[in-house]
Amino acid sequence: MITITSPQNQKIKDVIKLRDSKARRQTGLFVLEGAREISRALDSSYILRSLYVCLDVLSPEARDLTSQIDERLKLNITMEVFSKLAVREGSDGLVAVLEQKSFDLSSIPDKPDPWLLVLENIEKPGNFGALARSADGAGIDAIVILDPKADPFNPNALRASVGALFSRPLIVTDHETFATYCARKKIRIVTASPFAKDFHFQADLRGPLALVLGSEAWGLSPVWQKLENIPVKIPMQGLADSLNVSVAGAVILYEALRQRWS
Amino acid sequence: MITITSPQNQKIKDVIKLRDSKARRQTGLFVLEGAREISRALDSSYILRSLYVCLDVLSPEARDLTSQIDERLKLNITMEVFSKLAVREGSDGLVAVLEQKSFDLSSIPDKPDPWLLVLENIEKPGNFGALARSADGAGIDAIVILDPKADPFNPNALRASVGALFSRPLIVTDHETFATYCARKKIRIVTASPFAKDFHFQADLRGPLALVLGSEAWGLSPVWQKLENIPVKIPMQGLADSLNVSVAGAVILYEALRQRWS
Repeated sequence: MITITSPQNQKIKDVIKLRDSKARRQTGLFVLEGAREISRALDSSYILRSLYVCLDVLSPEARDLTSQIDERLKLNITMEVFSKLAVREGSDGLVAVLEQKSFDLSSIPDKPDPWLLVLENIEKPGNFGALARSADGAGIDAIVILDPKADPFNPNALRASVGALFSRPLIVTDHETFATYCARKKIRIVTASPFAKDFHFQADLRGPLALVLGSEAWGLSPVWQKLENIPVKIPMQGLADSLNVSVAGAVILYEALRQRWS
Repeated sequence: MITITSPQNQKIKDVIKLRDSKARRQTGLFVLEGAREISRALDSSYILRSLYVCLDVLSPEARDLTSQIDERLKLNITMEVFSKLAVREGSDGLVAVLEQKSFDLSSIPDKPDPWLLVLENIEKPGNFGALARSADGAGIDAIVILDPKADPFNPNALRASVGALFSRPLIVTDHETFATYCARKKIRIVTASPFAKDFHFQADLRGPLALVLGSEAWGLSPVWQKLENIPVKIPMQGLADSLNVSVAGAVILYEALRQRWS
């Protein structure tokens, strides 16, 4: 196994480039840190291109994972190189380059009562990642992103999701295609809006369901005024007029799960 | 009104010191940025010691607030000074120094069915602030922090709460004092634990209630094995074994609100 000792090595430069959305789009690759996150990606059939291993800081979990990887995909790196590659704190010695998977609406499982988390213009990748983590926890069938320019493989999104992002299809599409799909599949669209009359726990969240969250700053896009949907709001009893979007999403997702189980 | 033009001014140095927990403890003061946050603190009877105003970047909301403040408390600052004082992005020209309020268990409103959010060792101030925001939204009666060293006036906590932190008593106490109080007041203690048998929506969350959340990394402290409490868990259906603590707290708080309203 070769050991890369210089941060100027072209391979290392190429990995660092993948922090950039443009480089991810051009290559179809993304970069992922941490044994737990990388394991989750591999468990979800993401394809590994290369694994950079810094033996000096390898955690037991990371060592275990490394031993299961094809030798030809592994490259040792020195501490100096690792410190250039790793972004997050408390990293455990592994940085992977993986192939993105692309999904479309046909990736949604064909079942009687699918439920989907639908995100419009979530500005902060950290919020997107946190929502993906909650959506994984609640057990939704797919995440739909209504923004053709969205990049779910942003490093901050990956980090906030703790790898939970990989468990479901991540479908990037546009409003019209999605609305047509929902009409055809008889999926009810529920939108989170502070202007709704009903609270989220007053709405029926069972059956085929798409839960739509808008942007942190601007809320839902005006498109929804023309599309059939059921607005719901979360009670706000105090000084604050809204919850963080990732918190609001989790509150509604888990209310839906409660209803779907009862 | 005087204008401070130098970042080396002693007053400015003193404000910057308040970013430090030790300086906050010694002075009983804290520092707060942003018109919305400062308004919320004043609405909640926090006492203003001084307001630093940078006219160059004042938003309309900030201008409005400034006009209502006693002239003797206001100090103009230049853009150069403001850029040293302000930490967060998109600040609107105001930095305030306020007096901390101290609360104890007697600050909990005397009502038939109080409900409390109880936090043990929440490591990240951002999570603490986000929990305070959700607790304010759900309408709890007080936040109890079971850590005598906790400092609820950490700048990151204040920022994450968007000022919602001020709406409720923030009670810092220890486990024993708190458990005795709950026993005397017949407050049921519900703890969030991945080892619980029941899901959060299967437990009765009505009536006098204390909801306890443990640390992000270590969960609940062993103390709870000896204290009477009802453990509940949130269903985890996917790859991730837990939710972010601020998300988990909101999910349980809003389930409690649903039950309490129905």
